This record gives sequence, structure tokens and C-alpha cells, in this order.
Amino acid sequence: MRSEIVAKQTKAMSEHGIDAIICSSPENFAYTAGFVVPSQPLIRHRHAMTIVTADGRKEVFGVDMEASTIRRKLPDLPTRIWAEFSDDPMRVLADQLHTLGLGKARIGIEMDYLPAGDFARLAAAMPGARFEHAEPILARLRQIKTAGEIDLLRRLSRIADQAITDTLAMVDEGDSEMDIAGHLTRNVYSLGAEHFKLLIVATGERSTLPNVGPSERILKRGDVCRVEIFSVINGYQAGVCRTAVVGEAPPMADEIWSHLVECKYEIMEKVKPGASCRAIYDAFIAKLARLDLPPISFVGHGIGLHLHEDPYLGLTPVLGQPGSDAPLEENMVLGFEPLCYDTGYGFGMQNKDMLLVTANGSELLSDYADTDRLIVTGAAKKSGKRQAVA
Amino acid sequence: MRSEIVAKQTKAMSEHGIDAIICSSPENFAYTAGFVVPSQPLIRHRHAMTIVTADGRKEVFGVDMEASTIRRKLPDLPTRIWAEFSDDPMRVLADQLHTLGLGKARIGIEMDYLPAGDFARLAAAMPGARFEHAEPILARLRQIKTAGEIDLLRRLSRIADQAITDTLAMVDEGDSEMDIAGHLTRNVYSLGAEHFKLLIVATGERSTLPNVGPSERILKRGDVCRVEIFSVINGYQAGVCRTAVVGEAPPMADEIWSHLVECKYEIMEKVKPGASCRAIYDAFIAKLARLDLPPISFVGHGIGLHLHEDPYLGLTPVLGQPGSDAPLEENMVLGFEPLCYDTGYGFGMQNKDMLLVTANGSELLSDYADTDRLIVTGAAKKSGKRQAVA
Repeated sequence: MRSEIVAKQTKAMSEHGIDAIICSSPENFAYTAGFVVPSQPLIRHRHAMTIVTADGRKEVFGVDMEASTIRRKLPDLPTRIWAEFSDDPMRVLADQLHTLGLGKARIGIEMDYLPAGDFARLAAAMPGARFEHAEPILARLRQIKTAGEIDLLRRLSRIADQAITDTLAMVDEGDSEMDIAGHLTRNVYSLGAEHFKLLIVATGERSTLPNVGPSERILKRGDVCRVEIFSVINGYQAGVCRTAVVGEAPPMADEIWSHLVECKYEIMEKVKPGASCRAIYDAFIAKLARLDLPPISFVGHGIGLHLHEDPYLGLTPVLGQPGSDAPLEENMVLGFEPLCYDTGYGFGMQNKDMLLVTANGSELLSDYADTDRLIVTGAAKKSGKRQAVA
Repeated sequence: MRSEIVAKQTKAMSEHGIDAIICSSPENFAYTAGFVVPSQPLIRHRHAMTIVTADGRKEVFGVDMEASTIRRKLPDLPTRIWAEFSDDPMRVLADQLHTLGLGKARIGIEMDYLPAGDFARLAAAMPGARFEHAEPILARLRQIKTAGEIDLLRRLSRIADQAITDTLAMVDEGDSEMDIAGHLTRNVYSLGAEHFKLLIVATGERSTLPNVGPSERILKRGDVCRVEIFSVINGYQAGVCRTAVVGEAPPMADEIWSHLVECKYEIMEKVKPGASCRAIYDAFIAKLARLDLPPISFVGHGIGLHLHEDPYLGLTPVLGQPGSDAPLEENMVLGFEPLCYDTGYGFGMQNKDMLLVTANGSELLSDYADTDRLIVTGAAKKSGKRQAVA
């Protein structure tokens, strides 16, 4: 497992008086183990978990279909394998926990992931144990990224950014959204992503639709193109969105864009340790309002192993209470996105970037594209580079 | 909502003495409502649910970020919206259920999806209600597809099949796995899929790896290529895998392939209402063993809104007991895949198809490709069609 993450967990356990933490969600398994069990995010019942005890012991729990992957990735760790077609995984897990001496322990478990039915059977098989919510502890640890996590998120940010930017240079009037998708998926793999999610290609009148994949629509001069992708490695993800125009900008596009770019720099300026997430959001909304653009619920959020992590640039959800403000801290990584889906002029615009909170301010991780002015499509095509690239 | 599915649920409720069923997983929400709430599968806390009562009332529950989508798709239904940044969704849900007169009701809920923490708060807010496992009821209903579901799965099967087949005709020696991925993703969208999952491109020595995306590997004469994709519309999915050779087959490839093709026809022959899933699996394993090929855990499984649904062609999991045999029934849809990841000859082969159980036998839904002999790459390229297609 990842020793730095395990150390963070054992430290948190001693602070909270907990004897063990079980990570059962795909993202927290990956957080501790350093890899994703391939079918866990796809087939809900294929439980895979890491177990870390307060005194630093580490074990893994996984389904037989994934045993070879788990053993190849973690050859030195004790691993308990349950049989998909005959075992109740919760009885096998309870047995493993008993063997670890945790029969009467305080055990942190992901109450926001483990299904109610599984938890009921686990609790019944371990009547002497006390189960507690581990998800706030894990969420808090994950907010502050390690140097290794930051390196990976920087790499992922550049992959997504370059994949989109190079794609927009390769297409032009007469190409289709499908051409954009074809170049983009190829680029994102070629640049080293394991896979991708949330491919959005929205051009012309479709640029006002928040989440749409590519269609056969043909690009025409004056179109606005919103293109987004998340690149993924080992469960970590970075999302970038760029907006381009085909040949020339339609009326009001340059004005709205420069306004969104001002928002981008204003946010980058304000992001630093101690800054109020709420204040950054309020300033953004006020700025949107000056152009009569509609408000959005947040302008950014933590990101890493999950699409949205705390804190939000806005209000971070608190169960049953009004959302709360939070101060930014060094080594948080944020996705932030000045955007307006429906500008009222027949197009939408979005500029989504990845940002690291540094000791004194912020560092743009998605720094490949120059977004100070609207990207114009076809740059590589026009310079005759397309044959070489394609 | 989908009236035929709602009718199936109310009938099941009367058989089980249940007053309401709440669908809370992305797949059962889509099953009842007919669409996927876009961010529900991506952001776990964004609960969206359908509520159907035994007397046929229907309501929806969803997060504010998705309110516009829900209201556009289901304009006539009562919808309760909870606020992501201030509400406890379980208190809002409890209030909705009380208002529906379900405060003392027997309520079926997805205990294999709803997280333990959410369920505890819901149960605390509804002390007079009795919550029961709805997931076996829903899984059983979903096994038998409606005519509309079968039409969609047939369409999805052909999209995946044609997308792969056309791709294999467009690439040849000297192209890369990235070229395969580029053509394939373009094809799957062009043919009408909303999106796709599980893109696998495994060629040459990589064809022995079960689940790998495309790399920069260049195709060379004699390579075996395993290519798989799942096409997705409204949450429904169909998976197809094809195996091709570049130019010519390496030693033993034709022999092993014709063996897998025999297995395919034998399974299609045996699949019919009343047939034993276990017997079909046993016959397949015996046939694999005749070529000294290693056994696999199942050779097929139900499919629809989830990657794997019951029954399995093998043993269907039963919690805490040895898996059980099941008889096939009319209008089940199966994914089935005679395969051998590691033949021992430096390549892997897989032929994954979609099959409908009809009144008297079976119907191949993925019927676009001719897989009786190994596909040879580059057919379209050689016939000069590539320019027209690409």
C-alpha cells in the first residue's frame, strides 16, 4: 500500500481513538492501495477493501475474480479472498477482522458507501465491535494532497488540456463533432491517460447544453465549441474544458469570454491558504451579474479520486444544515470553472481549469492552452501540420 | 414514468404485501423513469429516486442540480427536490413518504445500494415504517425484458457489433491500437450510442491481458487483436467483443477460434426457456478442457441496465450459499462470451455476443459480424473503401 497515505490514516486513528479504518469505496480503496480494482466501480457487489489498523497493520479484502490483480499489485500483503458465487462477503470480512483482533474494536467504515444490507450483516456478525463513520476522516485526509498526488494531478491536467487544445487545432469548418471526439479520444490516450470520462462536445446551438456527447453536427464559421474531458490514471482524474470559435467569434462572444477570463485570473489571485471559499464564490457571482449572466451553484470544488471533493468554491454541503464556508489550505487541488451555459446569445462558454493551492497563492496545473483570447479552430490545419499530427 | 415497468412493480408489490417501492440506484431509477439522471452515477451523494405505491401513485425525488432535467423528462409527475448544499436528503425523503401516507407502511428499498448512513437516518425519521429488501424483487423483474427493452438492446448490440467490425476493416498492419480506438469511438457515436464504456483494445502479446485500453503499439502481420466495447443509451448497455488477425493467423489461432465458434453455436442451440444455466456452463467448460484451455467462472450472464444481471450461465450468486442453478426464461437477454485470455500460444481470443431467449430458442442480437472464421483486418482498406468511410 501507499506508506504515506497509511501513515496519514494511522495518525488520524490515534486522534479519533479508532482502532482500524476499512476503505470500501473504489476511490478510498485506490487512495490506500494505489490502484483501482478494475471491476469494482462497475459491479457493485464485487467488494474490495483495505484494512489499516491503528498500530499500522495492513490487509486487503477482495473478490476471487480480482485476486490475481490484487496479488500482482500488492504481493507482500495479507489478502483475504471471498468467492463471488458462494460466500457472503460480509461473513468473510467479519472473520478477517476477528482474526486481526478487532472483534471488540472501534472500527471506522464508510457509512456513505457500504450498502445498508451489507452493513447490517457485518454488524450482526461482529456484535462486539463498534462501527463509526470513517468518511469524514477520509474526506478530510484526501483534501490535502501529497507530493505524489500533486505530480499525478499536474500530469493529468496537462494531458486533458493538451488533448483538447491539439484537437481544436486539428479541426475546422466542415469537420463534425465526431471528428472532434475522434481526435480527442486518441489524443488523451496517446498522451498517457489510462482512460477518460465525461467527454463533452457541444458546438453551435448545442454549446448551451450542459452535458452532451458528440453528434454528427458539422462545424460552421462563427460556431462556438465547448469541449471537455477528464483524463484518468489510477482512479485520479483531472477535468479541463476549453471554448473555441470556428474562424471568427459571433457577436458578444469576445466580450463574454474576456469577462470569464477576468474571473479566472481573479480567482487565481484570491486562491491562497486561509482564503474563504465563500468569498471567492460571492465575488465571482457578483462579476457574472454585471454582465446579466445567470448565477451558478459553485465555481469550483476539490478534485482528486472523486469528481467533486470538499471544499467547494461556494458552500460545502453539511448534512441537514446550510452549507458551510471553509478556508483554503496548502496542497488542496481545485477544479474551477468560470462558465455560462446560456449566455442569451445562442451559445454557452466554459473555461475549466485545475488549480493547486501553494504556500503563498496558487499554481495553474492546466497550463498548456493560452485561453486569454478565444481559441480559434484549425491552427494546425492552416499551418499544414495536420498530416504530421494525424 | 414507464407505465409497463410501473405495472410490473405494482403487481410485485401486491404479491409481496408491500406498500411502496423506492428505486434509489442509478439503474433502477432509469428502469422506472426511462432515463438516467446525468450526475447520479458520478456523484454518489446526489440521490435521485422513484417512488411507486401499491395503488399506482408515482412520485420522484431528486437533487436541485438535476431538477431541470427531471422536470423536463417527467413534466407531469409530482417531484420533491432537495437542496444539495443545505438539506439532509433523507429528511426530505421521509417527509415526502409521510405526505404520501407511508408513515406506517411496508416500504421496499434497495438495501444493496442505499448507503448504511443514509438508511440509518431515513429509518430514524420514519420510526413507524417497515423497510424491506426491494432489490431481489427488482432484480427479478429486470430479468424478463419488455418488448421495448428488447428493441433497445437489439439496437445497442448492433451498434457495438458494427462499430467494431467496421473499425477492424479500416485498420491494418502499420496502424496502431490508437487508430483502432479512434475509429471505434467515432463509429459507436456515429451509429447512435449516447456514450460507451469498457473500451478494450488488446493486440499481439497484449491480447492476453483481460482489460486494457489502447496503447501506441503498432499492428504487425500475424497479430491477434481483441477489441471490445459497450454501447449505452438511457442506461441500457450491450457489450460485444471481436477477435481479428492482421493479415494472417498465427499458429493455432484458427484451431482455437473454430473451437470457440463451436462453443458459440452450441450455447445458442442450448439456450431456450427451461434450459439449465449450469448445464450450459458445464458443457462449455468440458469443451474448453478438450483443447487444454483453462476454465472461466461463467460463460455468460444477464445484461440490461447493469453490466451483470442474474442469471449467470454458470452459477448465480446466492448470499452465503453455494451459487444456484436457474432455468432460462423467455425474454431474458444474455451476454455470452466463449473466450480464452491466455491460450498458451502468446495470444488471447474472445467472442462476446448478445443473445435473446425466445419462446422456442434463442436469437443472436449482435448479428452484424460474421465470426465463423477469424476476421482479417483491413478489408475496407484493401477494397479502396477507406477514404469513403474515414
